[in-house]
Parts: sequence; structure tokens; C-alpha cells
Amino acid sequence: MTNPTAAMLVIGDEILSGRTRDANMSHLAVELTKRGIRLAEVRVVADDPAAIVSAVKALSSGYDHVFTSGGIGPTHDDITAECIAEAFGAAFGVRDDARAILQVHYDANGQELNEARLRMARIPEGADLIENPISAAPGFSLGNVHVMAGVPTIFQAMVASVLPGMTGGDPVLSQSLRINRGEGDIATPLSALAEAFPDLSIGSYPFMQDGVYGASIVIRGTNAGQIDDAMTRLAKLFPGDIA
Amino acid sequence: MTNPTAAMLVIGDEILSGRTRDANMSHLAVELTKRGIRLAEVRVVADDPAAIVSAVKALSSGYDHVFTSGGIGPTHDDITAECIAEAFGAAFGVRDDARAILQVHYDANGQELNEARLRMARIPEGADLIENPISAAPGFSLGNVHVMAGVPTIFQAMVASVLPGMTGGDPVLSQSLRINRGEGDIATPLSALAEAFPDLSIGSYPFMQDGVYGASIVIRGTNAGQIDDAMTRLAKLFPGDIA
Repeated sequence: MTNPTAAMLVIGDEILSGRTRDANMSHLAVELTKRGIRLAEVRVVADDPAAIVSAVKALSSGYDHVFTSGGIGPTHDDITAECIAEAFGAAFGVRDDARAILQVHYDANGQELNEARLRMARIPEGADLIENPISAAPGFSLGNVHVMAGVPTIFQAMVASVLPGMTGGDPVLSQSLRINRGEGDIATPLSALAEAFPDLSIGSYPFMQDGVYGASIVIRGTNAGQIDDAMTRLAKLFPGDIA
Repeated sequence: MTNPTAAMLVIGDEILSGRTRDANMSHLAVELTKRGIRLAEVRVVADDPAAIVSAVKALSSGYDHVFTSGGIGPTHDDITAECIAEAFGAAFGVRDDARAILQVHYDANGQELNEARLRMARIPEGADLIENPISAAPGFSLGNVHVMAGVPTIFQAMVASVLPGMTGGDPVLSQSLRINRGEGDIATPLSALAEAFPDLSIGSYPFMQDGVYGASIVIRGTNAGQIDDAMTRLAKLFPGDIA
């Protein structure tokens, strides 16, 4: 596939300790797929500057777009913004445009824009701000890296504001079929089907339900007609075992 | 922390397309934390040989243990085992011990050990098999890499059989406190607390619930007394805002 590629970097000890389940990965994956951008890699790293900087450099040079989540709040463990600046060699400090956004928000809520909150106005030089319609503190895009909050509602709002500006490829379409046969029975004819349709991606995802082994076969591609053809042939392979 | 480190490699297009939510990451994270092994990085890559081999090499040399999930079934898109062999430069083919395990299983179920199923007996030379109590096809450990199925029930069973053989560190303990104040108010005293307890890891995870901003503060470490002391000081900082 020649669609643009993307990677995601999830930043946060809470995912790696098992305390929190990441919810942003599947949201981003679905949204990118809709737009024809292929999510090719995800990394999850701890709140550790060296790990973040190294991952940002690797992903930024390896893929068309990089999306990060987490670590842009006001507390001492929020270190994403400064790490992104370091990865790009960009100057870093409180920016007037970001400070103005926060000032309006906290004035309206009768809260003080204190030193901790002002940390959220520290934005690398040259970055474009990403709007945060929920709690004001902006994300930002620097080069091909889009830096977003980890709180799922805010992450989703930021994704929605960033994605329309990106050139996608042809949307990736998919169809799936559940077959109530073990993968061991399905594998050989499925492999022949995959060879017959080299432009499609055909995946087999096994399940066991109520003691029955089966597999969901998912056919993906950008050509709807080809997918239809492949699905028709697939359905004929196991006529008695379709769920 | 001087605890042993681990990384996880999740292999599979289905996670990256958003079709399936990964369930194995949080399970492994919780189990490792219990044993005092620190999960330091997770990567998710597609069913792509170059991506898998490169990730295995990077993680295997960077961490004490690597756990993989996915891609060890009988279908054409299951390519994990051969990629692990390539990463280690190990010979690869059907092994008698793995074939014998499958033969017993399929004989007992009245199924044929056909060519596709025999793919699951292909194990790198020098690897130790990991028992699969659910569907027989084994995982394996080669060097510091532990190769396991992606189906959550099987993944969990394999983790349970591999972990007891590993030397852990002191178990990582944690306590948490929900504070009904915005992170902007919490940040400065929390930062001082983190400085006062350099051996502890203090994380702040913001939430918004019923219109109220707050944060869960999680204190982690291996010394229970220190965690108690830090929690006591934390609770005194915001006596009226503890959820």
C-alpha cells in the first residue's frame, strides 16, 4: 500500500504499570484507517526523558506522521513538551500565544494562572498550537510530530482538530467473515486466496467461543471491487461453517 | 530502581487497524509489576518481517526480558517464529518435540495434523518450548525473548508458565489517592513531595468526573514504610479535597 504512514507514541508510567488501560491507541487507529493513513507502529514508553527523546527521533524519521499522547499537564511528571523540543533541537519556554489562551480560560473559571499551570504554556519555538476545547491547555505540532493530551476526551478532540489538515490516501476498506473452523483447516485455502489477491491484506484472527474453534477472516484494501471478489471466493470455501 | 526490566512486542495488524483492542499488554504489565519486573517499553508492529526482526533485536538488547504476543498460529500471516529465528540467526524448522505435542493433541481431537498445523511445530534451534494448555501449539523462549500466542487466554496461560522461572526484584508496591482539585493546584506541593522522596515514583493522573477536575496521585516504590510516610504527607496537603 502506498498510503501515508503514521506512528503513535504513548507516554506514561501508568500504562506500563498496568494501572490504566490505554484507550487512545484504538481510537487513533480507527480514525487513521478511515482517512487512509496506515498506523504502522505504536510505542509505549515511561515518563523518562531519554526514552521519550529517542522514541520521538526514531518514529519521526521513520514515518510520515507521529502522534503522541500523555505528559503535557502541569505536574512534575509531565515532561513531554520539553522532550519534543530536545528531539528537534528547538528553543523551549513559555509562549505568549499559549499563555494568552490559558489566561482567558482561568480568568473565566476564577482560577489563578499559577506557576504550575504556566508550565502548560511552554511550547517549542516553531510549533503550531492544537486547540483543546475541553481544558484549554493546547497541544502542538512540531515538524511531523503532533503532541496531544492523554486524557481520552481531550485526546479525541485534538485528533479531530489535527486530522482534517492531513492528506490521506485512499480510505482502507475492510470486510470480515467469521468461519467456525479451526485455523489449521482454514490456513491452506486462505493462503491460496491471499496469493490470488496480492493487493489485499488478508488476516486471520482465531477465536474460541462456547468450545468451538473458529477464525475471523478480515480482508482489507483500497479497492472495494477486489474486496467483494475475494469475500465471495472466501465464502464459497467454507459454505457450511459461516457463522 | 534496580529491578529487572522487560519489554513487550505486540505483533499484529488487527491492533494497528483498530479492529481489536489489545488485552495482553495490561495483563502482562500487572503480572510483571507483582513480581518486581519493570515493564519499560511496549511496541506494537504489523505482520511485517522487517519490522518484527528489527524490533526484536532492539528490545532484546535493550532489556532483560522481552515478551511477544501474536503471530504463532498456522495461517500465512503468522510469521513471528521465523522472524525470531532470523533475529537470533538460529536455524529454523519443524522440531520433533513440538511435532509430538501437536500429534498427541490432534489425535485426541480426531483432527489431522496437516501441513498448515505443522507450521506451528516450526521452532528455532536452541529454544525452550512454552506449554500451551489450551490448544497445544507451544510458544518458546529463545535467549531472553519469550514468544507467546496472541489469544488472551493462551497468552495468559503462557505468561503464568514462564514467569515463575524468572528472578524478580523487590515487588513494586503502590498506593493511590484521589484528590478533587485540578492538577494546576496540586502540582507545586506534589513536586516538593516528589523531591522529598527521591526513591519513590510519584505520578499524577488527571480526571474529570461530573464536571469536577481532579487527579489520582499514585505513589510507587519497593519500601512500604516510605510509601506510607509519603501518603500521610500527601493526605495532609489537601485535607478537604480527598475523594
